[in-house]
Amino acid sequence: MAKKILVLHGPNLNLLGDRETAVYGKVTLDDINKSITALAKELKVEVHIQQLNSEGDIVSTIQKANKKFNAIVINPGAYTHYSVAIRDAIAGIKVPTVEVHLSNIYAREEFRQKSITAPVVRGQISGFGADSYLLGFRAAVSII
Amino acid sequence: MAKKILVLHGPNLNLLGDRETAVYGKVTLDDINKSITALAKELKVEVHIQQLNSEGDIVSTIQKANKKFNAIVINPGAYTHYSVAIRDAIAGIKVPTVEVHLSNIYAREEFRQKSITAPVVRGQISGFGADSYLLGFRAAVSII
Amino acid sequence: MAKKILVLHGPNLNLLGDRETAVYGKVTLDDINKSITALAKELKVEVHIQQLNSEGDIVSTIQKANKKFNAIVINPGAYTHYSVAIRDAIAGIKVPTVEVHLSNIYAREEFRQKSITAPVVRGQISGFGADSYLLGFRAAVSII
Amino acid sequence: MAKKILVLHGPNLNLLGDRETAVYGKVTLDDINKSITALAKELKVEVHIQQLNSEGDIVSTIQKANKKFNAIVINPGAYTHYSVAIRDAIAGIKVPTVEVHLSNIYAREEFRQKSITAPVVRGQISGFGADSYLLGFRAAVSII
Amino acid sequence: MAKKILVLHGPNLNLLGDRETAVYGKVTLDDINKSITALAKELKVEVHIQQLNSEGDIVSTIQKANKKFNAIVINPGAYTHYSVAIRDAIAGIKVPTVEVHLSNIYAREEFRQKSITAPVVRGQISGFGADSYLLGFRAAVSII
Amino acid sequence: MAKKILVLHGPNLNLLGDRETAVYGKVTLDDINKSITALAKELKVEVHIQQLNSEGDIVSTIQKANKKFNAIVINPGAYTHYSVAIRDAIAGIKVPTVEVHLSNIYAREEFRQKSITAPVVRGQISGFGADSYLLGFRAAVSII
Amino acid sequence: MAKKILVLHGPNLNLLGDRETAVYGKVTLDDINKSITALAKELKVEVHIQQLNSEGDIVSTIQKANKKFNAIVINPGAYTHYSVAIRDAIAGIKVPTVEVHLSNIYAREEFRQKSITAPVVRGQISGFGADSYLLGFRAAVSII
Amino acid sequence: MAKKILVLHGPNLNLLGDRETAVYGKVTLDDINKSITALAKELKVEVHIQQLNSEGDIVSTIQKANKKFNAIVINPGAYTHYSVAIRDAIAGIKVPTVEVHLSNIYAREEFRQKSITAPVVRGQISGFGADSYLLGFRAAVSII
Amino acid sequence: MAKKILVLHGPNLNLLGDRETAVYGKVTLDDINKSITALAKELKVEVHIQQLNSEGDIVSTIQKANKKFNAIVINPGAYTHYSVAIRDAIAGIKVPTVEVHLSNIYAREEFRQKSITAPVVRGQISGFGADSYLLGFRAAVSII
Amino acid sequence: MAKKILVLHGPNLNLLGDRETAVYGKVTLDDINKSITALAKELKVEVHIQQLNSEGDIVSTIQKANKKFNAIVINPGAYTHYSVAIRDAIAGIKVPTVEVHLSNIYAREEFRQKSITAPVVRGQISGFGADSYLLGFRAAVSII
Amino acid sequence: MAKKILVLHGPNLNLLGDRETAVYGKVTLDDINKSITALAKELKVEVHIQQLNSEGDIVSTIQKANKKFNAIVINPGAYTHYSVAIRDAIAGIKVPTVEVHLSNIYAREEFRQKSITAPVVRGQISGFGADSYLLGFRAAVSII
Amino acid sequence: MAKKILVLHGPNLNLLGDRETAVYGKVTLDDINKSITALAKELKVEVHIQQLNSEGDIVSTIQKANKKFNAIVINPGAYTHYSVAIRDAIAGIKVPTVEVHLSNIYAREEFRQKSITAPVVRGQISGFGADSYLLGFRAAVSII
Repeated sequence: MAKKILVLHGPNLNLLGDRETAVYGKVTLDDINKSITALAKELKVEVHIQQLNSEGDIVSTIQKANKKFNAIVINPGAYTHYSVAIRDAIAGIKVPTVEVHLSNIYAREEFRQKSITAPVVRGQISGFGADSYLLGFRAAVSII
Repeated sequence: MAKKILVLHGPNLNLLGDRETAVYGKVTLDDINKSITALAKELKVEVHIQQLNSEGDIVSTIQKANKKFNAIVINPGAYTHYSVAIRDAIAGIKVPTVEVHLSNIYAREEFRQKSITAPVVRGQISGFGADSYLLGFRAAVSII
Repeated sequence: MAKKILVLHGPNLNLLGDRETAVYGKVTLDDINKSITALAKELKVEVHIQQLNSEGDIVSTIQKANKKFNAIVINPGAYTHYSVAIRDAIAGIKVPTVEVHLSNIYAREEFRQKSITAPVVRGQISGFGADSYLLGFRAAVSII
Repeated sequence: MAKKILVLHGPNLNLLGDRETAVYGKVTLDDINKSITALAKELKVEVHIQQLNSEGDIVSTIQKANKKFNAIVINPGAYTHYSVAIRDAIAGIKVPTVEVHLSNIYAREEFRQKSITAPVVRGQISGFGADSYLLGFRAAVSII
Repeated sequence: MAKKILVLHGPNLNLLGDRETAVYGKVTLDDINKSITALAKELKVEVHIQQLNSEGDIVSTIQKANKKFNAIVINPGAYTHYSVAIRDAIAGIKVPTVEVHLSNIYAREEFRQKSITAPVVRGQISGFGADSYLLGFRAAVSII
Repeated sequence: MAKKILVLHGPNLNLLGDRETAVYGKVTLDDINKSITALAKELKVEVHIQQLNSEGDIVSTIQKANKKFNAIVINPGAYTHYSVAIRDAIAGIKVPTVEVHLSNIYAREEFRQKSITAPVVRGQISGFGADSYLLGFRAAVSII
Repeated sequence: MAKKILVLHGPNLNLLGDRETAVYGKVTLDDINKSITALAKELKVEVHIQQLNSEGDIVSTIQKANKKFNAIVINPGAYTHYSVAIRDAIAGIKVPTVEVHLSNIYAREEFRQKSITAPVVRGQISGFGADSYLLGFRAAVSII
Repeated sequence: MAKKILVLHGPNLNLLGDRETAVYGKVTLDDINKSITALAKELKVEVHIQQLNSEGDIVSTIQKANKKFNAIVINPGAYTHYSVAIRDAIAGIKVPTVEVHLSNIYAREEFRQKSITAPVVRGQISGFGADSYLLGFRAAVSII
Repeated sequence: MAKKILVLHGPNLNLLGDRETAVYGKVTLDDINKSITALAKELKVEVHIQQLNSEGDIVSTIQKANKKFNAIVINPGAYTHYSVAIRDAIAGIKVPTVEVHLSNIYAREEFRQKSITAPVVRGQISGFGADSYLLGFRAAVSII
Repeated sequence: MAKKILVLHGPNLNLLGDRETAVYGKVTLDDINKSITALAKELKVEVHIQQLNSEGDIVSTIQKANKKFNAIVINPGAYTHYSVAIRDAIAGIKVPTVEVHLSNIYAREEFRQKSITAPVVRGQISGFGADSYLLGFRAAVSII
Repeated sequence: MAKKILVLHGPNLNLLGDRETAVYGKVTLDDINKSITALAKELKVEVHIQQLNSEGDIVSTIQKANKKFNAIVINPGAYTHYSVAIRDAIAGIKVPTVEVHLSNIYAREEFRQKSITAPVVRGQISGFGADSYLLGFRAAVSII
Repeated sequence: MAKKILVLHGPNLNLLGDRETAVYGKVTLDDINKSITALAKELKVEVHIQQLNSEGDIVSTIQKANKKFNAIVINPGAYTHYSVAIRDAIAGIKVPTVEVHLSNIYAREEFRQKSITAPVVRGQISGFGADSYLLGFRAAVSII
């Protein structure tokens, strides 16, 4: 049976293509999702994609993924920098998780250079735009 | 057509008049909302007022305001001090935003003196009690 | 009429018994809730128990407890360390609150050693596993 | 008898319109003073406006305002960030004081984000350009 | 044979009831000791109570408790915040230790919010006045 | 010939008796000056007393005191905490200097607990109200 | 009946005259004690002088002074910089306390520039050598 | 003509498979190089691989790569955390650079969590073991 | 017409030759001014030299230099380390400014190692005694 | 006459062999003392060995050693990290002192990596278990 | 015999004119070297110029300069900010050293604002582009 | 077969006897090496001694020592304070390492008080001049 991967987009990622295009480029979330779906097909894994603005919803979604998915690719967006709750959810489940970021968070404001989720994920990929998701997806596939 | 302004009250502001009256006074949120509505009428703009406790809901409400309002007056309450998600939502839309606070946040506990949303709003008004909203409303009107 | 106490479990506590068992042990949330219920019966108070992942929901639940309960026993979980919103909700109501933690948070990572809610609760109990709840429950009962 | 308000411009504000126009815009101090005078007339209060470069002179001027004015609107300019002497002068008199800033000081260099006078004024308004003065003037009028 | 518990009061606790009553209340150390003795009787354990001002004496007393007691309930008082020697004594023996505080140390001066002994005790209880001792005593009893 | 001592009052000390009486008491500067003059007479030294709000004026006054006085008693007021210029003036002259404070600066706000002039004066006296000046005056007399 | 003052010398002060003479000069503790006794006679107060190396002994001595003395003049020596226990003892009694230091602690190593006892004493005198004690004694006398 | 990519291994990476295997695993540098060479063949690009212990040599090698390669994949090893010289070399050339790490540097010692080169590379991949190189290589290929 | 350069000496520089000669040497301000005048003649530019103790006077002098001079050579003395007002004056005018220091400020006390004016001047020269002025003067001449 | 060396063991070292054996090993203090005595015999010096839990006792013992010993070998144990009193005692006597530690304090918790006594001893040896004492003893012998 | 000066260019300075031209301008190292050589001729001193990327090579070159040169003009480039080894080499030789920087390092990133070599050189010149070298060369000549 | 020990001197140690003699004394590196060689003979072990200025060379030398030596005695000199590369090399090999320093690094500048290599060596000896090497050599011999 095909492996299943959950791709989770955090808050404000639905604004992509429209929001701060100098930082994030003009690619929309839809464009990214299409690339991911295509890659999933190529790598022969199933993919489920979701975008959530609420920290609590992300926590609950991660908890529920525990039994249903083989890996998670997550871009926690703004929550990257302070959500101990999401960190604990990731640490609390058994599914391996890959953290991705569109922009190079280490080339941005001081407060964006700290990822509170990074210590509990398997690995982190940041700075390659939409490609960060595709590389993260490949990473997830080769872990499982 | 009349300009439209969204006034957004953050978490716990519904407790006003009852909560820590030594700090916040005895004015209720209802009282404040009435003053705002009256001023809106005087300045001939439309106003929509909302109170939300959830960070994710505030993020979503800001996102949806993007097309529907000409300006936002927001008191992010406790989220002022740590919600990168709300900051990103404000930075991600095109509607100008005014930040207001009832109390003088710079005369309070250390952790309340840092506003993480301040750098992305147009301006900030704090310390004038209910008047902070009215001054902020005027500021919003003169921007649009 | 019997006194009423609200026991509030924060995010990820539903994973107990399954999550990071090296830190939290194998007791499940159900086990804990049963012990609390038994103790409530012994002490002749009514108890209501709830688990919530969302910060906003916790804020709202605390607000609503204001009229309906005589005390709150809360384990804010991950939110302990950054939720000014929950802190404000606790400070904003008149019901006395007791903070409890399963693990000894002062023997863990640096960022877990700071409780942002501690200054506004009546007292704090940490490190006794499920017993933290029972001791906290007793504390709540002797306050009211 | 008409209420009297003192508007105090701190150091280098006389350079406005010429100085760092990318930050402060092209409005001159004269333009601002005219708008304030017009608003004063509209609100039926007397206004006295002064620009001073010297910290000691600002301290002395605030002290003398104690008996002669009903409120002060002050833009302490650079002194905002380190003048304990001006802070003490404000705290030492009985006239309520409103602090205003042309630019959003919280969106600028780290050292400009700290106002040492903020804890002792009634409230603070920053980021609305010349409008900061007008809003501050209104705030002062509604306090007295 | 009955279990034995050592209750250790740190420096200045002999001043209780007389000292800073705004913070510590009017209960005397004698009152507290009587409550503890009563609870010990109820729980059928033996108790030995001691108050010491000297850090070195506390260290020696903890060392000697190693063979003679089944648990220690300690309020290290001022030493809580800097005595590595007491910390090392607690860590160096095999008897489980419970740390208690009358006041909520997290609601006090910055330097009182850090407990250097907390990471090596089993758990900590603070903020419930004399009840902190009783809860701590119960905790100790259920550990042994 | 009689020894000569300069007593220098820094900014806002002219407000004494009227300003923040909870902190500084109701004694006026005049009262203090009279006590100093009386003590000078008793100790048979000449005294010259001056109050200045401007940092530059204090610097210049200290420089000129170099030849004319045998010692300086200074309360640098707010400048205590940041005036490197006054520090350098004190360090640059050969006259011994005594620093005095009315209030106990170490029991006040964090930023008032640091004296930048302390390392270059002979000694410091703080917290005894008007008596700080008299003790400082005696100290100056016994140095010269 | 004559007022009684306790003069308390902290650790290592018995080495005076022999120890680090570059910092502390060649005056011995005996010399200082003689000057104090002479001044006590002149001011017509009784004086009791004690030197203690142990923190616990200093705590106990301060506690016992509560009933027997009208004021304390204390040089806590090295304990100045970290003894919360001595601070608490001073804060816990009703006798006013004056803190003195031979050397100007603010002109020395960083860790000596912080006095943890300063916030709870009436006032502090530092830098005048043996005269610090005499000035402190006068200060104590004029308080009582 | 085929694109050329330089893969640069920093100090101590030659010890791989032998060094701290609990952290880095048992894969040798040779194993990694073979995987990279195979992937290069698959993606039809030329690859040149080098391991260097000296900071100066890495700087010089990066400088020379400027004309000869289309992209660099670099694991700066220990130099990641302090070599401004390597950072400047990367920033000084026009070839895009991808930073990779075998271990998740954000789950290690504090001083390893800061990458001084991250702000000047295109993106960073860390935590996937040997796969970090392969993902980085893919990233480099899709950039050029 | 000859170019005009303003040389501005900050507070306490008038004490040179007499003040802290271990740090600043025995050269007087007069000696320095003569060397500058001689160099000005050699380089065929006009020079105006001024010494000011007051921060406000320095601010005003810089403002007035805007139209009248082609460059400024300034030694802000003690104000170097905290005067945002002088920094703003320099940044607010169009005349290029060169900052000079007699001593090597980076080999002195921590608080002297930070120059708040350095980021807004063209360049900085420190440590060459009187030569710092001559080198700074040359630098100013070659800029204009 | 034979040289005399004092070996001073700080708090909790009497627990050696029993306490935290993962860190300190199973060697007892007795074993260590025997090795030291043997080495003393071999090197033909007299040795006196003492273990003390109280800071004040250690201070007094160091003071008394001043006349009676030629060198001190001290393991201040927990007091290493905060006892300014012991530091002052060491600095206040004329006997050279050698500091030793069983464990490598720089490989342990942050708060153990700072030795407040290190700056005033002749040298420090840490990390060689019981051998630290023997090496320290040799060091002491070659100094005297 | 003519005096000899060594000019030492640190890492990446060979990229000048090509590298980050927004910061460093378009002048090449060759251009700078020609200007220096011309000035040397004019001032009648011999000059030797070298560019090195390796920290160890710079250390060795400075050591060897000890006997052969009368002064060193050094731009340590990136090593300015962390090379204690180069600092020690400079401090270890007897030849006076002048530190120069092309850009105003105090107007750049935080980590570039700290020079670890500055405290041991004679003086520092920064911000005048190629002129920094020429001014530094003049400074070196007037020292020797 | 005789055990082999590598003694590694870091940067600038070749300047010993000539460099900063106030800190390091007049002993030359040659003198030290002779003492070490003599001790090696006495203890019947082979010794190889090397001095290196380059960080990369030290890294490579440590790596090569892995198979050839039984222990390393290293004085990393300036690199002690920042070379993660040398730290990693030490941690990456299996040979036990002893760190030695001539001067008491804990009595020097702040930045010299931190050893980045200390946590990965067996133990550290500092402050005994040339004897530090001899004690370190003995330590190394008793480990192997």
